[in-house]
Amino acid sequence: MIKDTVTRIQKIDTSLLQKAQARLDNLTKPKDSLGRLEGFAKQLVAITGDLMPDIDKKVVFTFAGGHGVAEEGVSAFPKEVTKEMVLNFINGGAGINVLARHTGADVVVVDIGVDHDFLKDPNMPPLYMCEIGGKLAFGKNGVAFITNKVVHGTKNIAKGPAMTRQEAEQCIQIGIDLATAYSKQGYGIFATGDMGIANTTPSSAIAAVLTGRAVKDVTGSGTGIDEHALKHKINVIEHAIAINSPDPDDPVDVLSKLGGAEIAGITGLVLGCASQKKPIVIDGFISTAGALIAYLIEPKTRDYMFASHNSVEQGHKAMLDRIGLDPILDLNLRLGEGTGAVLAFFLIEAGLKIYKEMATFGEAGVSEKKEQG
Amino acid sequence: MIKDTVTRIQKIDTSLLQKAQARLDNLTKPKDSLGRLEGFAKQLVAITGDLMPDIDKKVVFTFAGGHGVAEEGVSAFPKEVTKEMVLNFINGGAGINVLARHTGADVVVVDIGVDHDFLKDPNMPPLYMCEIGGKLAFGKNGVAFITNKVVHGTKNIAKGPAMTRQEAEQCIQIGIDLATAYSKQGYGIFATGDMGIANTTPSSAIAAVLTGRAVKDVTGSGTGIDEHALKHKINVIEHAIAINSPDPDDPVDVLSKLGGAEIAGITGLVLGCASQKKPIVIDGFISTAGALIAYLIEPKTRDYMFASHNSVEQGHKAMLDRIGLDPILDLNLRLGEGTGAVLAFFLIEAGLKIYKEMATFGEAGVSEKKEQG
Repeated sequence: MIKDTVTRIQKIDTSLLQKAQARLDNLTKPKDSLGRLEGFAKQLVAITGDLMPDIDKKVVFTFAGGHGVAEEGVSAFPKEVTKEMVLNFINGGAGINVLARHTGADVVVVDIGVDHDFLKDPNMPPLYMCEIGGKLAFGKNGVAFITNKVVHGTKNIAKGPAMTRQEAEQCIQIGIDLATAYSKQGYGIFATGDMGIANTTPSSAIAAVLTGRAVKDVTGSGTGIDEHALKHKINVIEHAIAINSPDPDDPVDVLSKLGGAEIAGITGLVLGCASQKKPIVIDGFISTAGALIAYLIEPKTRDYMFASHNSVEQGHKAMLDRIGLDPILDLNLRLGEGTGAVLAFFLIEAGLKIYKEMATFGEAGVSEKKEQG
Repeated sequence: MIKDTVTRIQKIDTSLLQKAQARLDNLTKPKDSLGRLEGFAKQLVAITGDLMPDIDKKVVFTFAGGHGVAEEGVSAFPKEVTKEMVLNFINGGAGINVLARHTGADVVVVDIGVDHDFLKDPNMPPLYMCEIGGKLAFGKNGVAFITNKVVHGTKNIAKGPAMTRQEAEQCIQIGIDLATAYSKQGYGIFATGDMGIANTTPSSAIAAVLTGRAVKDVTGSGTGIDEHALKHKINVIEHAIAINSPDPDDPVDVLSKLGGAEIAGITGLVLGCASQKKPIVIDGFISTAGALIAYLIEPKTRDYMFASHNSVEQGHKAMLDRIGLDPILDLNLRLGEGTGAVLAFFLIEAGLKIYKEMATFGEAGVSEKKEQG
């Protein structure tokens, strides 16, 4: 199934870039004066194969998973926060909810591996209790909740592999299926997001193995650990890589041994979007770990991606460089959830609106550039 | 009148920063994890003196003026484009219209010095013909047009001063009056914008005199002149500074001798916003020349400003550094009109919504950070 999806991924239609450029150059502004906004419009045209693409319907997928490695004391927050934050998402009170509302995007929370039974949780709002189980329905806060657990938290990578290869592939398939289903529902642009206490640890491990950098150079303080705990976190990651011996030439091996369920879901979402010719906006550090694995599975996915922002988290830039992406925003963000990605939605959409809505020199009766000599 | 306004400008209320920080630190996210967005919220609180500020009503002022120095061949476009673009703004087809609609801001086009009689122009839409003359009314495109001409284009700075001191002060007063009037109408956040073929030339001249940099280090290609024309432009600016001898310690002297009517209007808008305790978002290179003059008239204005973006135009960063502002976006923009500023509206508003709308740890039942040690 994953192989079928990967095979369907095509190169973006670069023949359309020139046509889009011609339109941009005829709008009432100096050539290239809207910089990267113009590039966004061109990329959307080439991705969708549509000279007038439509990205009005926007969605962010916040994949949530637990991490066995949390028991090593690598995070500043207790592991219960993963399920507590999932409830916060469902109730519309988290950062991703506020920013998705601000940018007009829907939020889909995907429990792909949280160690908690939400169906039996008395804190679940009843609205969602009757909607889950594969049906994609939005609640009053513009939030859908889907529970499709592959693991009840990953195993502790300091002691062995996080998941089996089969489990990692199941997670990837869930991401692919979501991209396909929402694409059919008319969504025009997608974003990744994550929640999982301790998940900067597997992300740094993936970054180290797949970029070839030293662990200390791609490991940061996550939600806010101190200097002492950071040293411990680096030791844990070095140990996890040593005992699991992931094969750097086999991205799914790296993902299953060191990754998280939510990271694997993000990998699948990227592959699914590329196969559906849909733009996919990558959030921060954890999302980029998932995107890097998708890129190494199929490098053609790169041109379907937008890198939303440059995270505070050390190691993010190394992964963006490995894929070959230039982040859009640089606002010292390090929250995850998809928050940076939905902010970038606004700027990508701004580029498309410029392209679609501005008057041409002819329409507006504006004189063109003088001949220079 | 200007002096009265300047005297009324107070320091922002920094005692509120701590209160805003306390609220931010209690929201369901790691401390400081939303980076600059959190800073925007705090600054808005301190500017307005209101712990729950309201910036729903947003407006950008695009000041338009002609430039006598255009006859020296310093621009890639003919000078008629200034009035043609004003008509494009009024008809809703320009970049600023598209991006202001995208971010939910109103556009006010101010003819403060265009060498064209719009009242007698058959291309003016009738809607606006009956609305002008001091009345502030919005047309169907969310655009208001105000004609309040101080000059019919500035005089050629390569031959003498651009304006008299009195004319420059009249332009400043118009900006102040607009800030006051729109503030009374409930607008919560303001932005600057400009239109004026050849206006990077006076802006570079102002930048050189007020930052002490060499003209060649603060002069760029504007709307797109070639290498040869750029050398000529640098010569023209050096000559203009030499023959006008502006006093670098007297910002209004620099403004009147080298500036443009639209730059002076922007200076006034900044002073007016600060006196009204309203946040003012500075667009790109030309707007920053106007903002720098406001800053040198009254340094307290600095804390009311947000620098929207880092322009391609060489010399922009020198002026931002002189004021002490860190730009929000870096998208290779160089269009002006207020386009960068209205994009930044979205991010500043995102910060405020985070602050106002996110759930606290207590409200959401989310566990707080562990004790470390």
